[in-house]
Amino acid sequence: MSEVGFIGLGIMGGPMAANLVAAGHRVTGYNRSRGKVDRLVEQGGVAAGDVAEAVRGAEVIITMLPDSPDVEQIVLGEDGVLAHAPEGALLIDCSTIRPDVSRRVAEEGAARGIRVLDAPVSGGEPKAIDGTLSIMVGGAEEDFARAGAVLDAVGATVVHVGPAGAGQTVKAANQLVVAGNIGLLAEALVFLEAHGVDAEAGLRVLGGGLAGSAVLGAKEAKMRGREFAPGFRLELHHKDMGIVQSAARDAGLSIPLGSLVAQLVAASVARGEGGLDHSALYNRIAELNGKG
Amino acid sequence: MSEVGFIGLGIMGGPMAANLVAAGHRVTGYNRSRGKVDRLVEQGGVAAGDVAEAVRGAEVIITMLPDSPDVEQIVLGEDGVLAHAPEGALLIDCSTIRPDVSRRVAEEGAARGIRVLDAPVSGGEPKAIDGTLSIMVGGAEEDFARAGAVLDAVGATVVHVGPAGAGQTVKAANQLVVAGNIGLLAEALVFLEAHGVDAEAGLRVLGGGLAGSAVLGAKEAKMRGREFAPGFRLELHHKDMGIVQSAARDAGLSIPLGSLVAQLVAASVARGEGGLDHSALYNRIAELNGKG
Amino acid sequence: MSEVGFIGLGIMGGPMAANLVAAGHRVTGYNRSRGKVDRLVEQGGVAAGDVAEAVRGAEVIITMLPDSPDVEQIVLGEDGVLAHAPEGALLIDCSTIRPDVSRRVAEEGAARGIRVLDAPVSGGEPKAIDGTLSIMVGGAEEDFARAGAVLDAVGATVVHVGPAGAGQTVKAANQLVVAGNIGLLAEALVFLEAHGVDAEAGLRVLGGGLAGSAVLGAKEAKMRGREFAPGFRLELHHKDMGIVQSAARDAGLSIPLGSLVAQLVAASVARGEGGLDHSALYNRIAELNGKG
Amino acid sequence: MSEVGFIGLGIMGGPMAANLVAAGHRVTGYNRSRGKVDRLVEQGGVAAGDVAEAVRGAEVIITMLPDSPDVEQIVLGEDGVLAHAPEGALLIDCSTIRPDVSRRVAEEGAARGIRVLDAPVSGGEPKAIDGTLSIMVGGAEEDFARAGAVLDAVGATVVHVGPAGAGQTVKAANQLVVAGNIGLLAEALVFLEAHGVDAEAGLRVLGGGLAGSAVLGAKEAKMRGREFAPGFRLELHHKDMGIVQSAARDAGLSIPLGSLVAQLVAASVARGEGGLDHSALYNRIAELNGKG
Repeated sequence: MSEVGFIGLGIMGGPMAANLVAAGHRVTGYNRSRGKVDRLVEQGGVAAGDVAEAVRGAEVIITMLPDSPDVEQIVLGEDGVLAHAPEGALLIDCSTIRPDVSRRVAEEGAARGIRVLDAPVSGGEPKAIDGTLSIMVGGAEEDFARAGAVLDAVGATVVHVGPAGAGQTVKAANQLVVAGNIGLLAEALVFLEAHGVDAEAGLRVLGGGLAGSAVLGAKEAKMRGREFAPGFRLELHHKDMGIVQSAARDAGLSIPLGSLVAQLVAASVARGEGGLDHSALYNRIAELNGKG
Repeated sequence: MSEVGFIGLGIMGGPMAANLVAAGHRVTGYNRSRGKVDRLVEQGGVAAGDVAEAVRGAEVIITMLPDSPDVEQIVLGEDGVLAHAPEGALLIDCSTIRPDVSRRVAEEGAARGIRVLDAPVSGGEPKAIDGTLSIMVGGAEEDFARAGAVLDAVGATVVHVGPAGAGQTVKAANQLVVAGNIGLLAEALVFLEAHGVDAEAGLRVLGGGLAGSAVLGAKEAKMRGREFAPGFRLELHHKDMGIVQSAARDAGLSIPLGSLVAQLVAASVARGEGGLDHSALYNRIAELNGKG
Repeated sequence: MSEVGFIGLGIMGGPMAANLVAAGHRVTGYNRSRGKVDRLVEQGGVAAGDVAEAVRGAEVIITMLPDSPDVEQIVLGEDGVLAHAPEGALLIDCSTIRPDVSRRVAEEGAARGIRVLDAPVSGGEPKAIDGTLSIMVGGAEEDFARAGAVLDAVGATVVHVGPAGAGQTVKAANQLVVAGNIGLLAEALVFLEAHGVDAEAGLRVLGGGLAGSAVLGAKEAKMRGREFAPGFRLELHHKDMGIVQSAARDAGLSIPLGSLVAQLVAASVARGEGGLDHSALYNRIAELNGKG
Repeated sequence: MSEVGFIGLGIMGGPMAANLVAAGHRVTGYNRSRGKVDRLVEQGGVAAGDVAEAVRGAEVIITMLPDSPDVEQIVLGEDGVLAHAPEGALLIDCSTIRPDVSRRVAEEGAARGIRVLDAPVSGGEPKAIDGTLSIMVGGAEEDFARAGAVLDAVGATVVHVGPAGAGQTVKAANQLVVAGNIGLLAEALVFLEAHGVDAEAGLRVLGGGLAGSAVLGAKEAKMRGREFAPGFRLELHHKDMGIVQSAARDAGLSIPLGSLVAQLVAASVARGEGGLDHSALYNRIAELNGKG
């Protein structure tokens, strides 16, 4: 069992920290809003009043933050994780951020004797609660081995995919595919509805064949019912598509489908739907077809 | 058990007819090339020398033909199925064709006392052999009920989705989603490879989360290995995207993603790759990125 | 001077017929709605009560009809132009229709001793009134020569572009470029407005450089003022994009930009804006950006 | 007449500086490669050995640099323009760079008593030589007035479009439209050629109507002849499309057409054609259609 410092106890981080406690780790948690720290204490964790307190004495530090600037501030910043973490500690950053920022965190960590993994997750709140997240890990092989006991407490599919930043790259590819699959499902549903087909039956048979997907399973009922409570918010997927596009550009890549999907996601945020579940991308296709 | 006339004993129709024999039906088969009829006889079926002979005395007639013009000729034509089928027979057309042609077949059948279902299938040669196809059926409820024993011998997911033509509409939606998912997988793979990530590991973790899909499961190894023996040929998927686009146009729909994917499929045929598996859509994305 | 029969005296055909009268030709006109025939008579033309009367004794027959089915009925139909035109007459079809229909008209004309040119026009109502249309002509070289005196009365740029159907092909390319230029101008305007730039000044400088175009000149004021009285209606441009797409498909072509523009045009019709000027494509881009 | 310091004497900057000399200004020029400075001296200018020397005593300073990082280094850097320019001087930055960098230059300039305009140009080498560039100027009204005599010596259309950064925003919109028009022209040409139409005649008639554009006039012969010596290089247009996309993203905009065009431009660079004229975007469309 390990001494774990956990920073970022939101929708995803909260249940992850709870699962670590349940697995027998000693988890000291910090979050900007005190209520979430109290919640962790109720679940058996320990409260920290700031970042320094959270990482003091930690063997493993997990960060789960919203975006690249948050990581730059809370991990790399003056009073941040790297400034206070004990030498030899392992930092596992589960935030979904730009690969180049992950690489910088790894470099600055190495300079201070802190080992770093980027380990973004997929699966959303339900799998965070169940401890069955998919986790894509970038960093050194030996650090991945060392992270095993901790990551197994929160994930079901934990895969080492390459060096520092590789986890973020795979997560970006994941978000590209997910957004695209949502967009295609939306077009298929509008197509079925416009032709007067029984859409529930139609999508059921699609789900049983080569058109089947996790997106179809998880999102078709939301789309048919126009019920878009999040889940994973469009504004976060918009942030992620920004990472996809800048990572593609940095590598000199042309991704025509991903790029078109990204425009539809951007439009959803522009239309004021950034707070809805990403399946509300359906609304863009419906609106283009006069059903908005 | 039923007297079944089966017309079109190709890659898909051949194993479907064999499964009907195995289920105890008496199957009389016809195909333009005699060798395929002989094959059916070896498997326990009965040979027919022409369409008229195949449908004589049949309770159920199944047609599995390549494209709309084939159905127009062999079903609606002068010496075709409707001209020779016994009154009261049930015609199940498993071809993937334009919905408006299916509706015309249903109307002309009704005028001659022949009941008609459109019942295109999904799942490819492996599921045709296993008798586990997904089948999307358009037509009258009572005809669907009557078709049950026969369709259960060839399919695992057999769903009634609406009136005449609805099966084709759902199949079109299916092909839209499948082509799109292939295109997105291709972009994700090019993205991972360009960033030097372990693509096999990366796609494995995608498969375990919300990016997972039947396409990813069935096609990622082909793409990674650049091994594109068909399977389902790009030229057939191109035909199907033509159906998608004309059905969208007829209904006054805008489908931006489907339409862009259709252009990439068209390009694959223009590039002379129509005979490859549809996963070779990967080549278009690779080529755009100088890896062609 | 020639005896000219003119069928189709609408927004475009009306002023074209008037210009032929003004140039000294004897023009006998027919239109379904009698008021437009009366108008031509006021301008010095001759009234015809039906197609047969319009073409009787004509050396040159001009048709200006909305769509392919209209040409099929009024030119090829039982009581149509080819049934009544004098042998040796020259039919100039100025309608914008499918190239394959134009080729069929040419063939059926040839079989009855009628020479045929397809001669769709570009420039809209203002250039129809001024007699300065661009005219793209398909057919035999000698027939083009013979049409000279007549077409020069209505067009400023009259170009022979190839055999029967070639005029339609060039018109389709024209509509592809025009729709695309409108869409790009719309994106540029939304871009400028969102950044708080003086859009009038910005577009003025664009017009002076490599971004300059006839579309920019003709449409930017309409877009900036959101004043979309037609002009050329979106529903007609939608029809034309259908021709573009089916001609591309018939030739096995991939046109990703044209295809995406076609989806935006289709969406405009689906949104109920088919009666607005095609510059109202702006509304689709604005709407995607929450300014709809 | 003014004392002008000119930094960046490349394909564009060289002839611009020469035109300033010809108009009677005293021009002191600096360029990293000495040969270009010698050229200016032959034309009547004065040589500077470094940035400091070029700006010493200048009333007006013009910079014409390749990209944002160059401006950051040569204008904002330690030994750069702002460090050495006399108080009260007017800096006109003609580089095409990110709007946010232009805004930063204006702010840092203001802090040191240097007035700044962003003034990117359009028209390419021929118009640089003729002194008939289109120039889009961002900054204060009074500074624009003061720049008049200098900018009139190099441009024919010189327009004030808004505050600092607005010139870059308009230039970005310009590049979006130009790239899109090139892509559409390429699709039209492939379309005409595939249908066996006389492409030269076809494009001539397009040029006379609503499809006419500066791009069509300047680029159609290059495309028809597959002769792609630059002109404006694809790699520079790729850089510019990066500015378009990041400026769109910063403003929360969805630009589906611009984004798709950007992918085709990116593909051209990925394919190793970054050194060709931007009209070589034609090759992407041709290649998609098996004519590559």
